[in-house]
Amino acid sequence: MPGSSRKDTETRITLIGTGIIGLSFAAFHLTHLDSPSQLTIYDTRTDVAEYVQESLPTFFSDEDKASLPSFSEIKIAKSLEEAVANASIVQESGPEKAPFKLNLWAEVEKHAPKDALLWSSTSGIPASQQNCKMQDTSRVLVVHPYNPPHIMPLLELVPSPETATEVIERTQEFWRARGRVPIHIKKETTGFVANRLAFALLREAVHLVDQGVVSVEELDQIVQTSMGPRWAVAGPFKSYHAGGGPAGLEGFFKNIGGTVQDCWADSGTPNVGDGWEEKLFKEAKEAYGTVDVGERDRITRRMLQVMVEERSKSGDT
Amino acid sequence: MPGSSRKDTETRITLIGTGIIGLSFAAFHLTHLDSPSQLTIYDTRTDVAEYVQESLPTFFSDEDKASLPSFSEIKIAKSLEEAVANASIVQESGPEKAPFKLNLWAEVEKHAPKDALLWSSTSGIPASQQNCKMQDTSRVLVVHPYNPPHIMPLLELVPSPETATEVIERTQEFWRARGRVPIHIKKETTGFVANRLAFALLREAVHLVDQGVVSVEELDQIVQTSMGPRWAVAGPFKSYHAGGGPAGLEGFFKNIGGTVQDCWADSGTPNVGDGWEEKLFKEAKEAYGTVDVGERDRITRRMLQVMVEERSKSGDT
Repeated sequence: MPGSSRKDTETRITLIGTGIIGLSFAAFHLTHLDSPSQLTIYDTRTDVAEYVQESLPTFFSDEDKASLPSFSEIKIAKSLEEAVANASIVQESGPEKAPFKLNLWAEVEKHAPKDALLWSSTSGIPASQQNCKMQDTSRVLVVHPYNPPHIMPLLELVPSPETATEVIERTQEFWRARGRVPIHIKKETTGFVANRLAFALLREAVHLVDQGVVSVEELDQIVQTSMGPRWAVAGPFKSYHAGGGPAGLEGFFKNIGGTVQDCWADSGTPNVGDGWEEKLFKEAKEAYGTVDVGERDRITRRMLQVMVEERSKSGDT
Repeated sequence: MPGSSRKDTETRITLIGTGIIGLSFAAFHLTHLDSPSQLTIYDTRTDVAEYVQESLPTFFSDEDKASLPSFSEIKIAKSLEEAVANASIVQESGPEKAPFKLNLWAEVEKHAPKDALLWSSTSGIPASQQNCKMQDTSRVLVVHPYNPPHIMPLLELVPSPETATEVIERTQEFWRARGRVPIHIKKETTGFVANRLAFALLREAVHLVDQGVVSVEELDQIVQTSMGPRWAVAGPFKSYHAGGGPAGLEGFFKNIGGTVQDCWADSGTPNVGDGWEEKLFKEAKEAYGTVDVGERDRITRRMLQVMVEERSKSGDT
């Protein structure tokens, strides 16, 4: 795993919640901490210790499995107070319900060290709706991963207007030092940025399949053999800036801005519940059955490793 | 180059137009034909022979350059009649103007063999607007590449309602036999499919940068570290189908359809010419200057090679 050679002997991380995201973060942290004893896990489920022991190995690659961390050294806390009392980072991946997070942070604040970083993995509840019961509203920061975070490099850091700059900066340093890409989102936008972008493409995809232009599987093949690999190497602006030649993005829009606008003007705007669902759900099921996520993750790891190698060759970041 | 071990001794390809797309197709074909003499190039520029000799090597990777085809064996035709008289495939990558293509195909039809495939690389002029002056309107097929076609696997096959099924099928066979991914687009949709999808995401990207949520460079980093690599491995439907667990795409929408709809309802709809251009063009220029396309292409080749290797391991396609 990129960055795993750099081991951290100081940080004490407390994870709250052991869903897929919580466990994926656990796997990531374990490969970057010096000792599993620096990790504390808290969950209200009664079998949390056994559950973590059983589930965590599935988050490691076949190569990693040769030298797994000693999961039994992970601290399993019996109360929230115990969980956060000694933490330098508290990262919650609990239920996506605002009241849960509101109450959680108010409790955490009472028991955690004053300088502990407080991160939420939420994909939709802004920090400004999580910090309302706190004395110090400047502490909570959304650190939204792209699933699964033990593999994907992106973290969206989404502060509330009250979040302290120092909190954002320390969080950026933490992730950068571990080879990850933390991006500071400047405004609390619905869905943040990555999902908004992906869902914008998804909407047009739904429209085109619903209209019978291509099938679900054909649409996926199109993306996999064109913009997927392209955007893995260079994002959309960089790609179109390159496509415009020496005149850059301006040249691109000068050359084919008319076609872009024609597509925008003609784009579909289906909504959830509009009736396209039955056909598309059926097609997806017939095409894919149950997806082998292990295979996807294995290929993704290799691809991201290629990117790291190539970017270090060229000195790019 | 994937598939280059399978050499084709029968096909005689005529390329019309020597812009970037035409030359990129030339490079692709040269690595799959048995002899460069099976390739004929026609362009109205007077220095076409010298120009092709000089420009073509830049379309080959460093590894390929060790054993370049003998470019001097490529046939340079002096007239359209001569160019197509003996062709099994005529592929035009000429100016994006309907009158040019209309007249071209009417002329080609007079001189080319009756069973020659007639392909247009157009990104926007449908086959039904290209075939109007032909005796046999069933022959023209749009074969739209994702730039650059000597690297990217996708070909969008966009027939007119009159295009013969046999033409589509023979074209699919040609590209599949060469390791490419030809997708039959069922309706002549503005911008076809790949560009519509990419431009839908671009539109939201323009909106978010224009609103100051992230910068041009940050937006690209987000895509490069999340949906780019994800969609290179599994397209959006397959990804979300996997994300829904055993319940598939239906489960995904059941779980987070609300968030998807919130993002759709909140999405921006900037248009070309709305005034966002100055800020974005400036940011792109400052962030990227002139993009090193050679590096992008080198990394993309490696990534696509990884995909080919991994998919052949798993028996997937």
